[in-house]
Amino acid sequence: MLYEEIYIEGRNAVLEALRSGRPIDRLYILDGCQDGPVSTIKREARKTDAIIKFVDKERLDQLSSTGHHQGVIARSAAYEYADVSDILDKAREKGEDPFIFLLDNIVDPHNLGAIIRTANLCGAHGVIIPKNRAVGLTATVARTSAGALNYTPVAKVTNMSKTIEDLKKEGLWFVCADMGGEVMYKQNLTGPIGLVIGAEGEGVSRLVKEKCDYVASIPMKGDIDSLNASVAAGVLAYEIVRQRMAGE
Amino acid sequence: MLYEEIYIEGRNAVLEALRSGRPIDRLYILDGCQDGPVSTIKREARKTDAIIKFVDKERLDQLSSTGHHQGVIARSAAYEYADVSDILDKAREKGEDPFIFLLDNIVDPHNLGAIIRTANLCGAHGVIIPKNRAVGLTATVARTSAGALNYTPVAKVTNMSKTIEDLKKEGLWFVCADMGGEVMYKQNLTGPIGLVIGAEGEGVSRLVKEKCDYVASIPMKGDIDSLNASVAAGVLAYEIVRQRMAGE
Repeated sequence: MLYEEIYIEGRNAVLEALRSGRPIDRLYILDGCQDGPVSTIKREARKTDAIIKFVDKERLDQLSSTGHHQGVIARSAAYEYADVSDILDKAREKGEDPFIFLLDNIVDPHNLGAIIRTANLCGAHGVIIPKNRAVGLTATVARTSAGALNYTPVAKVTNMSKTIEDLKKEGLWFVCADMGGEVMYKQNLTGPIGLVIGAEGEGVSRLVKEKCDYVASIPMKGDIDSLNASVAAGVLAYEIVRQRMAGE
Repeated sequence: MLYEEIYIEGRNAVLEALRSGRPIDRLYILDGCQDGPVSTIKREARKTDAIIKFVDKERLDQLSSTGHHQGVIARSAAYEYADVSDILDKAREKGEDPFIFLLDNIVDPHNLGAIIRTANLCGAHGVIIPKNRAVGLTATVARTSAGALNYTPVAKVTNMSKTIEDLKKEGLWFVCADMGGEVMYKQNLTGPIGLVIGAEGEGVSRLVKEKCDYVASIPMKGDIDSLNASVAAGVLAYEIVRQRMAGE
C-alpha cells in the first residue's frame, strides 16, 4: 500500500511540518512541557485536525527512532492529498461525467474508510473532505478503505460551500443525503454529480445543504433514526449507479 | 435499551447457563485453574461462541459483584434471541411479504450491528445468524445497531441450509449476494424474500449458496475487491426496497 506512517521528531521539524500544511493526525507532547516553542507547536496544531496527546517521557522515547524528540513527536500520513482538479481530470481521462463524494464532517475513521472504499467501487472519481473538524487520512482510514486510498483521490478543502460553487461552474450539480427530501428513487441522479454526505447524527450542515440542488432521502421504514453513515453513502451511491446504468 | 449485560458468577451458575443455551459472549477464568469443574466449563464453553479469557484473581474480584466467583465469571447478553417463527409472525402482523436477512458467518461485530440497523430501517422483519462460528449479540453489536436490536428480532440457527429449506416451504425464495451473479438491478427481487449475506473476504459458503434461488451481484466499477459487508447488505436491501415500492 501507498499508505505509511511517518514520525516527525523534534521541535523544528514538527513546527515546520505543521506550517507546511502536511497532514499531521497525531501529536505527542511531553506532559507538563510549557515553554515557548512547545506552546507555538500547540497553537499551530490546534489550527489543524491533529489530535494532541500529552504523554510521559518513557512513551516518547518508545516512539522515537532518532532519540532526539525534544519532547515532541508528530505522526503524519505519507499519503498525499489530491487536488479537486485531479478528481475532475480523472473523470475526463475516463470519458465519464464526474461523480464525486463530498463528506461534510465525517468523524469516525471507520466510516471514512468504508466510504472511500465504496467511492472506489461505485466508480466515483474522488472524495472531498473538509480541512477542519473532520477526521483525516489516518492509519485506521487507510485500513478500512481496504486499499481504495491507493486508487481513489481524496482532496481536502478549506471551505466546502465554496468548493461546491466552484464545481457548479464545472457543470456539476449537487445532491445532499438528508431526511425530508424526495425519495431518491424518484429523482434524476444522472449527469455530472456531487453526492454530499453528512455526519452521523448531525446530518449535513446548513450552509452546505443550502448550496445543494436537491435533497435526496433514503426511505426509512423502521423504528430507529438513521442508517450508519457509510451504509447511507453506499445506498445513495448505488442508486446513482443504477440510474447511470439504466441510461447507458 | 433492552440490551444489558449480565454477569453470571460461580461454577454451577456458569455451567448451568452454558448448558441451557444462554448466549455467553465472554468467559473469564482464573489463570492456571485446572480442576475438574473448571475443565468441564471450558469444554462446554468451547461448544459455543464464547470467548475465553484467562485472567488473574484481581481482575475477577473487580468484575464480581457477589464476591463469590469461584474463579469463573461469564458475561451474557440479556438480549433474548428470537425464533424464526417470530420473524414470520412479524411479517404476518404487518400484512407484508416476509423480508429476512440471513447472515452467513459475519465475524465483525461492527458489521453485524450495522446490518441489524439496516435491516430495521429497510423494513426487514428479522435477521437470522448461525449458531456457531459467527459473532453473537455482544455489547459492541448492540451499540453499533443503534437501538435496532430492541425492535428487529434476531434468531440463531444451527443449520443455515436447513433453515433456508424450511423457509422455502413458507413461500420465501432466496437471493444470495455474491460475485458472478446477474446484476441486482436486472433481477426481480419482489415477493417473500430472504437476503443472504456472506462474510467479508470469503463470501457466502458453498452449501448455503447452493440453496439459494439466485445470485445477485452489485456492480463493481473500481480497482479493489469488494464492499464492506454492511455496505453491501445495505445496497442490496435498498434495491429490494426500491423494487417493492415500485410494485406498490
